[in-house]
Amino acid sequence: MTRYAQLAGELRRRIDGGIYRGGDRLPSIRALCREFAVSISTAQTAYARLEDAGLVEARPKSGFFVRSQPAPTDLPAVTRPAQRPLDVSRWDQVLELVERHPPDDEVLLLGRGIPDLACPTLKPLQRLLAERYRHASGQDLNYDALAGSLALRQQVVRLMAGAGSLLHPDDVLITSGCQEALSIAIRTLTEPGDVVAVDSPSFYGTMQILQANGLKALEIPTDPCTGISLEALELALEQWPIRAIQLTPTCNNPLGYTMPEERKRALLALAQRFDVAIIEDDIYGDLAFDTPRPRTIKAFDDDGRVLLCSGFSKTLMPGLRVGWIAPGRYRDRVQHMKYVSTGASATLPQLAIADFIAKGCYERHLRAVVTQYRRQRDLMISWVRRYFPADTGISYPQGGFLLWLELPGGIDSMRLNERLVPARLRIAPGSLFSASGKYRDCLRLNYASALTPTIEAALRRVGEEVTRLYVGVGDRALA
Amino acid sequence: MTRYAQLAGELRRRIDGGIYRGGDRLPSIRALCREFAVSISTAQTAYARLEDAGLVEARPKSGFFVRSQPAPTDLPAVTRPAQRPLDVSRWDQVLELVERHPPDDEVLLLGRGIPDLACPTLKPLQRLLAERYRHASGQDLNYDALAGSLALRQQVVRLMAGAGSLLHPDDVLITSGCQEALSIAIRTLTEPGDVVAVDSPSFYGTMQILQANGLKALEIPTDPCTGISLEALELALEQWPIRAIQLTPTCNNPLGYTMPEERKRALLALAQRFDVAIIEDDIYGDLAFDTPRPRTIKAFDDDGRVLLCSGFSKTLMPGLRVGWIAPGRYRDRVQHMKYVSTGASATLPQLAIADFIAKGCYERHLRAVVTQYRRQRDLMISWVRRYFPADTGISYPQGGFLLWLELPGGIDSMRLNERLVPARLRIAPGSLFSASGKYRDCLRLNYASALTPTIEAALRRVGEEVTRLYVGVGDRALA
Repeated sequence: MTRYAQLAGELRRRIDGGIYRGGDRLPSIRALCREFAVSISTAQTAYARLEDAGLVEARPKSGFFVRSQPAPTDLPAVTRPAQRPLDVSRWDQVLELVERHPPDDEVLLLGRGIPDLACPTLKPLQRLLAERYRHASGQDLNYDALAGSLALRQQVVRLMAGAGSLLHPDDVLITSGCQEALSIAIRTLTEPGDVVAVDSPSFYGTMQILQANGLKALEIPTDPCTGISLEALELALEQWPIRAIQLTPTCNNPLGYTMPEERKRALLALAQRFDVAIIEDDIYGDLAFDTPRPRTIKAFDDDGRVLLCSGFSKTLMPGLRVGWIAPGRYRDRVQHMKYVSTGASATLPQLAIADFIAKGCYERHLRAVVTQYRRQRDLMISWVRRYFPADTGISYPQGGFLLWLELPGGIDSMRLNERLVPARLRIAPGSLFSASGKYRDCLRLNYASALTPTIEAALRRVGEEVTRLYVGVGDRALA
Repeated sequence: MTRYAQLAGELRRRIDGGIYRGGDRLPSIRALCREFAVSISTAQTAYARLEDAGLVEARPKSGFFVRSQPAPTDLPAVTRPAQRPLDVSRWDQVLELVERHPPDDEVLLLGRGIPDLACPTLKPLQRLLAERYRHASGQDLNYDALAGSLALRQQVVRLMAGAGSLLHPDDVLITSGCQEALSIAIRTLTEPGDVVAVDSPSFYGTMQILQANGLKALEIPTDPCTGISLEALELALEQWPIRAIQLTPTCNNPLGYTMPEERKRALLALAQRFDVAIIEDDIYGDLAFDTPRPRTIKAFDDDGRVLLCSGFSKTLMPGLRVGWIAPGRYRDRVQHMKYVSTGASATLPQLAIADFIAKGCYERHLRAVVTQYRRQRDLMISWVRRYFPADTGISYPQGGFLLWLELPGGIDSMRLNERLVPARLRIAPGSLFSASGKYRDCLRLNYASALTPTIEAALRRVGEEVTRLYVGVGDRALA
């Protein structure tokens, strides 16, 4: 490790440990040089790196300051879903959320899982795509290899090495978005009537896959800091014939936590003990605020039971529909499922993304958006604190761009959404994320796009409606 | 109808009716003017149109001649598959056929379902794609509407009006290739263990969908001229609990026939009587050699039981993965299945194809390839006649670019393929197209790409191996 990286690491530990707090002035360059016996340029580079990471801010003529980090003291409670396998429903609500509104219907969607598409670091990808399409011939217009283009699979292997997994390009299959990866993983492992254990709240897209395939969801209580409860999962594995565990352990959607590494290892050990497969959704993993990004469960998988699913819809553009799966020991059956699902995936977007990664543009883009998302997480949390009732639970995302709120007084977020219709606003209601109708008092927000005054005004409006409903709850309680 | 179209129609009827035969000299322009009391330019236009359609050829200074059409006297026999529901297998063989060979492994695949990708009329599409990708922003990089882009759905509606169907854009859902359309149609209609009736031989991709979903295929005997046997189908419907009928009635893959319209109507009536859904694969329908193109079964569907599946992989480029489905009364369930399968489809290829159709480029391209495919059908049939044993059965495709051969003496086409390995050649063995191991003595060829001397030499080589195997059969019979 270089000297400046060591220094940056030490400063970071002090910030995370609360030795330097939000708003604190940090030691001067000169003081750093003295304390750590480093050169001026090393000290400057260390601060620059912390600035990039969004931890430190330079104020002209005043020096370096710790950025204000909201302390995660107001987290939502540990979830307590129903502890029995359930059918999933709520397709109507999901459809309302994911359906694109016609251009004349200018509704501001505050809760969808869409990254910032205005980011200038995406422009080179568009150029690469345009060039590929203009100059393609023969093979590139044809059906691709069923597993996907070798060039992209090689780049995925490189990326995953950074997440602790030593894969071979043959271990990776390209899919039409991460949704197809999850869908074929689940269909490969299950038959109708089977039970799948899921973290809870859980991504509604996966829940709908369970529904469409006649599967039952067993929702496991989940901690907003450390993820799925291993204790509850163990009990469930003893009690029910669980065919697979499906979860999003890194930069979780919707809760934002990353499971600590030792808990990821413990989860894998549990799966091994009960001989159950793990479907690991890592679609937000590359957007972790920590560097290097956290390791996947797959990184510790020594018997091929983890099916790692990911893609580029949250890091690059959803509209490209490029995802992938590393299905471990299930490769051949997953490949067959992929063939019958859509055949080969589109060729040229894969090649363009492979170029984009190989040229270093992906890494540059990630640095830019991660810095942006981290800053905007803090800003949006500060807005929620300002505009929502004081006892609103707020998640503290470790990556990605989604915030989860737990409203006080059991306020129904579906009712809230109805109240927001005249203002042409919509949040993602929490009940989408459960098979058992839980989380009605929760909602998801998106802080990916630039947090303009329009967004602030919208959030203030949502907060006002919440406050009104909250007062109503209080009135009813008094009556 | 314009005067020249009437005249062209009359001339065509005379050719089809055998009044003017292949190689015959046709009436001069002057004679036409006299007989039909039309102007010189009308007569000229009529001949030009027949030339475009590949029926007539102009020879400098000699006049117009009927193109040689091989008389369909050597068709394969009506198929007689096993008449009970069967599990599908043969995935290994399918994988070998559809898997892309590495560039260093220069195997000439003579049997894959790939259109001519070198056609210059495709170039404008590449330009449109490049422009779309370069200038896209915001919404176009985002998740598309779940049903697909309105612009493309509108164009699909226009195209299908030409195939006799009056659809609304809301009746159409865009998919990731026709394979996804077929896959979600089948999954919407069935549960594991169900029976699906199919024309036989049948597209291997659909057979594999049945396999992956635990369904049984009931293969119905099929006539190489008129398609699926309605008599056998009726018996099957009386005998078995059939959940859906899946077939390719127009420019069938692999047999090449188009079901006559009255048989399409009769099939629909049968489905209505037994209250069964029809999954109609029309992927080759736009490549019919007749103009206007034949009507679909969907055109007569008055109670929404036909799920029409198609796309642009056979008419434009497979690598774009743009297909669609018009699922009739099953729309909502199909839409849910689409969401859980891949979510929305890629946005920009849809918009570029919509542009391509709207500008008239699609029609121009179809005219070019249909003329080419029709001419090459005749050429390849003449090669088979020259290089294969005389009693080889040969299909007579009414559209598309696939030829089906029935080898004499029960020659096994898998064995033939093994014999072709040293020559780096591969045909598509017939057994892929059956669940009951039928059609081992059949094979599929592709005549889409320019029929160069290389292809002729390859076909001669295949014919030689067939002849050698045939002589071997005779020798064994004598021994």
